[in-house]
Amino acid sequence: MVANESRKTAGEEKLEIMRHSAAHVMAEAVQSIFTDAKFGIGPAIENGFYYDFDLPRSLTTEDLPVIEAKMKKIIASKAPFAREEVTKEEARRLFAAQPYKLELIDELPDEKVTLYRQGSFLDLCRGPHVSSTGEIKAFKLVSIAGAYWRGSERRPMLQRIYGVAFDTEEALADHLKRLEEMETRDHRRLNKQLNLYIAPEEIGGGLIIYGPKAGRIRAVVEEFWRQEHFANGYELLYTPHIGLGKLWETSGHLDFYQENMYSPIDIEGQQYYLKPMNCPFHILFYKSQLRSYRDLPLRWAELGTVYRYERSGVLLGLLRTRGFTQDDAHIICTPGQVEDEIAEVFRFSIHMWRAFGFENYKVYLSTRPAKAIGTEEQWEQAEEALRKVLAEQGVNYETDKGGGAFYGPKIDIKIEDALGREWQMTTIQFDFNLPERFDMVYTGKDGQEHRPYMIHRALLGAWERFFGLLIEHYAGALPIWLAPVQVMIIPVADRHLDYAREVETRLRSEDIRVKVDDRSETVNLKIRQAQLEKVPYMLVVGDKEVADSTVSVRLRSGEQLPSQSFNDFKKTVRRVIAKKGKDLK
Amino acid sequence: MVANESRKTAGEEKLEIMRHSAAHVMAEAVQSIFTDAKFGIGPAIENGFYYDFDLPRSLTTEDLPVIEAKMKKIIASKAPFAREEVTKEEARRLFAAQPYKLELIDELPDEKVTLYRQGSFLDLCRGPHVSSTGEIKAFKLVSIAGAYWRGSERRPMLQRIYGVAFDTEEALADHLKRLEEMETRDHRRLNKQLNLYIAPEEIGGGLIIYGPKAGRIRAVVEEFWRQEHFANGYELLYTPHIGLGKLWETSGHLDFYQENMYSPIDIEGQQYYLKPMNCPFHILFYKSQLRSYRDLPLRWAELGTVYRYERSGVLLGLLRTRGFTQDDAHIICTPGQVEDEIAEVFRFSIHMWRAFGFENYKVYLSTRPAKAIGTEEQWEQAEEALRKVLAEQGVNYETDKGGGAFYGPKIDIKIEDALGREWQMTTIQFDFNLPERFDMVYTGKDGQEHRPYMIHRALLGAWERFFGLLIEHYAGALPIWLAPVQVMIIPVADRHLDYAREVETRLRSEDIRVKVDDRSETVNLKIRQAQLEKVPYMLVVGDKEVADSTVSVRLRSGEQLPSQSFNDFKKTVRRVIAKKGKDLK
Repeated sequence: MVANESRKTAGEEKLEIMRHSAAHVMAEAVQSIFTDAKFGIGPAIENGFYYDFDLPRSLTTEDLPVIEAKMKKIIASKAPFAREEVTKEEARRLFAAQPYKLELIDELPDEKVTLYRQGSFLDLCRGPHVSSTGEIKAFKLVSIAGAYWRGSERRPMLQRIYGVAFDTEEALADHLKRLEEMETRDHRRLNKQLNLYIAPEEIGGGLIIYGPKAGRIRAVVEEFWRQEHFANGYELLYTPHIGLGKLWETSGHLDFYQENMYSPIDIEGQQYYLKPMNCPFHILFYKSQLRSYRDLPLRWAELGTVYRYERSGVLLGLLRTRGFTQDDAHIICTPGQVEDEIAEVFRFSIHMWRAFGFENYKVYLSTRPAKAIGTEEQWEQAEEALRKVLAEQGVNYETDKGGGAFYGPKIDIKIEDALGREWQMTTIQFDFNLPERFDMVYTGKDGQEHRPYMIHRALLGAWERFFGLLIEHYAGALPIWLAPVQVMIIPVADRHLDYAREVETRLRSEDIRVKVDDRSETVNLKIRQAQLEKVPYMLVVGDKEVADSTVSVRLRSGEQLPSQSFNDFKKTVRRVIAKKGKDLK
Repeated sequence: MVANESRKTAGEEKLEIMRHSAAHVMAEAVQSIFTDAKFGIGPAIENGFYYDFDLPRSLTTEDLPVIEAKMKKIIASKAPFAREEVTKEEARRLFAAQPYKLELIDELPDEKVTLYRQGSFLDLCRGPHVSSTGEIKAFKLVSIAGAYWRGSERRPMLQRIYGVAFDTEEALADHLKRLEEMETRDHRRLNKQLNLYIAPEEIGGGLIIYGPKAGRIRAVVEEFWRQEHFANGYELLYTPHIGLGKLWETSGHLDFYQENMYSPIDIEGQQYYLKPMNCPFHILFYKSQLRSYRDLPLRWAELGTVYRYERSGVLLGLLRTRGFTQDDAHIICTPGQVEDEIAEVFRFSIHMWRAFGFENYKVYLSTRPAKAIGTEEQWEQAEEALRKVLAEQGVNYETDKGGGAFYGPKIDIKIEDALGREWQMTTIQFDFNLPERFDMVYTGKDGQEHRPYMIHRALLGAWERFFGLLIEHYAGALPIWLAPVQVMIIPVADRHLDYAREVETRLRSEDIRVKVDDRSETVNLKIRQAQLEKVPYMLVVGDKEVADSTVSVRLRSGEQLPSQSFNDFKKTVRRVIAKKGKDLK
């Protein structure tokens, strides 16, 4: 099962030009403050722009409003952006005091060099730009960071100022609010208070150790996943994490995918590789018996932990790791079954995402790329099958022409989270390649050998990424069915401990995950901690509760519910768990 | 968690001498048939003996009774075994026509060489032997195999005859019956009809791919295992399969365990190793937070797949693999908690084994070896704790003096299967080593840092070996709660298919694993196949069943139960599943 890279969305070009122009304006503002500033580069980036400067002193966040004020003046002046074309020699003369620019000029391939000028600022730049600084709309400078010139540790460290820029003040305000929310929801930040996982240097980059709380969540998710798969006609395989080089030669991985594979392990003179995918193992099991059309479709799933090499620079929390567990499946079927199977996978995917509280998604259909294996007829049939399935399900989708894998077309589903961000998660892929390479066959009704179709699919994607999405979508406050501790019982004093234990035992016998905080700390501190850990329910039990045999219920939102009988509380919790929703009442 | 090697049982020495003497007698018999036979070696082995011969023609099983008859005559003659001592030179002269013996003589370190003679046969041999051939009791020659001289492919292939020998004819008969039963129950043989797993050459030795049926069994076992662990106060960790070399240096594995580890993987110039154990990862999570005595004991379990190098020659089906999944756990506790924890682990182990239908076991306590780390006081306390726990549980145990690991004493539990064979499965080990090496600490009541105790335990051992044991113990007919398919519905004709589907749906809604065999084959063939696959219940549905809304129930034993209502059958199945036993009625 191949991972998917997310593609840049279209329609951002106009904004990008404005953002790039804002970078020039920021440079002009900085030049007006630091007359001997040396300039690096200043591109547009997602949502904004940056510029790298070599300055006589370190900037602080207090400099940002000053620079912003200067920028606003420049914008108000509606200075035109003027394009100029000069020889390299002329450019060298113009930028004689700018060593970084001189370095860039030297590397330009053409004899002619383009410059852009607005107000007093001249920059080496290919453009394009807005026609006047007045076209720069809502912007804000957001942060300062160190950045090596050309990203190299052996070159000078410059100061980078990041800004964001949008068409309207509203869009800017929305973005800033979103930034703030994203930061609060960042799974790496929440992990610090939730203690879910560690990624310690001692074991190496991109490898995760899940602690008890994450382990509990994962066990719940995986068992739900298994039961749903069994109920939907899947069977479960377990396969090793290494395989002989010969296997990965047959599969084509050593030819087409080796840069993503770990270096080999030598055993008795033979080379083994950590598996980057599970497919070849499933295929070997397929081939271990004679298969008839009566046996198809086969739906074989595995929670398979795979290892793929990523440069250490691109590793990112749970979202980009080197070791991850895919919820992989291979469907092996006859050509006649393929439409039903794809439709079923699509339906099952949406069903699963709903169960985890995700209702919104976008669908992409990726078609034949320039370099592809398989006949045109196969591609047409497969693409048509995918289109038909999507049409029949009434799904709006975008077509990504030429975006398919070399071995077949695919449907990708991007899941929208609480902040409206899209996460590439589900992928459903045709494969013309492996059935050929491994010479997979089945005996048809006609008694002849036929080649089966193979569909790869990952539904939740990788456990790591899915877990990151879960945490960010719910800002750590997982639906109760997923919460590692569902109820925290907080006795007011030691004399309430017996009653607390009694309530604990009764809840546990109802399969409710419960803990008693029996430390000798104040009730307030215990409540604060349970709330920080996003425990759905806190039961504070004191004299009144013991006397009345009741429980006093507090939600993690801080809301206090009226005292209630144990039975009423138990019923509420069981109902809420069964509903799998966010609502706790 | 370190694997355990099983030790040779004591008391077999006398039998061994007799078996060795039987090998000499067999050689004498072979010599009387093939006068120019060349002799290799002829040792005693478990339950019997063998001898390697270089003969002018290939032996067949028809030769065995002829050789046996000759042996019986030699035994009846009560010929004495005589020991002789000669110089190497004299020995070379005596064995001038025996090239293999000459090679052995050349390698003997002493100038004096011992020989044994009985009747017309003289052998180079250190002895000892019985005093006369008449002391050789019940024996039988069982098989012929090819064997390279000295186990080397570059040396001549000799013919090896295997025999078994016992004190009495009854013991021999018992053994032969057992051999037969063992062969019928051999998991590799049963796997051929049950299609549980493959271990294909293409992926490399000692690596297993579990197919859908094994996957279902494993999912049931693992979920039961998880729920039992949660209920018994364990938490679950998930950790990667590789870690940096530095980690394995800290843990001491690269010093003490490297010969069992796979060769390293290079990533960006750093060396990673496949994990042979899970411990260091659990310890890193322990160390990721400050720990107080209030947090202890911690009981952290993991179904961790580890990889250990074994020579390809010793790999054996599911029983000896290179990749296996341990049901590992680490208990980290204060010294004061250690006895309760060990007692609890012991109780929990026996509870789990009972759940899988194993009632009989033997317990071994292994104490300080010559080379050991940790203070004498630590060892005494730890050994005493183990002894006390076993005494309090009223457990008989054998002490294996000096049999502990270098890092601590341990309790091993050997499980007895249906044939009375002992399987080394559970191990409970003290560890003085890793808490030191990783500098693990907790804050005590006194506010000072203390070193916690650490217990490693594997309860079922490795999934692979456990699965092999399950198959052999039940001869493939797993208790219904573990059976991948619990009920097979067999419609007599196509017109009964609707009713079959209705019964299927109703059973499935009761969480019963059910399949309809809808192939156009005869009922008898379908029954035969379901029985071969050890499906607990077969429901044959025909006109009568459809008319009466009943089911006709056949057990995998072949027993036919009276027709019954669907509800009665459903109740029986649910009751039998809940009981987790073998009984199907």
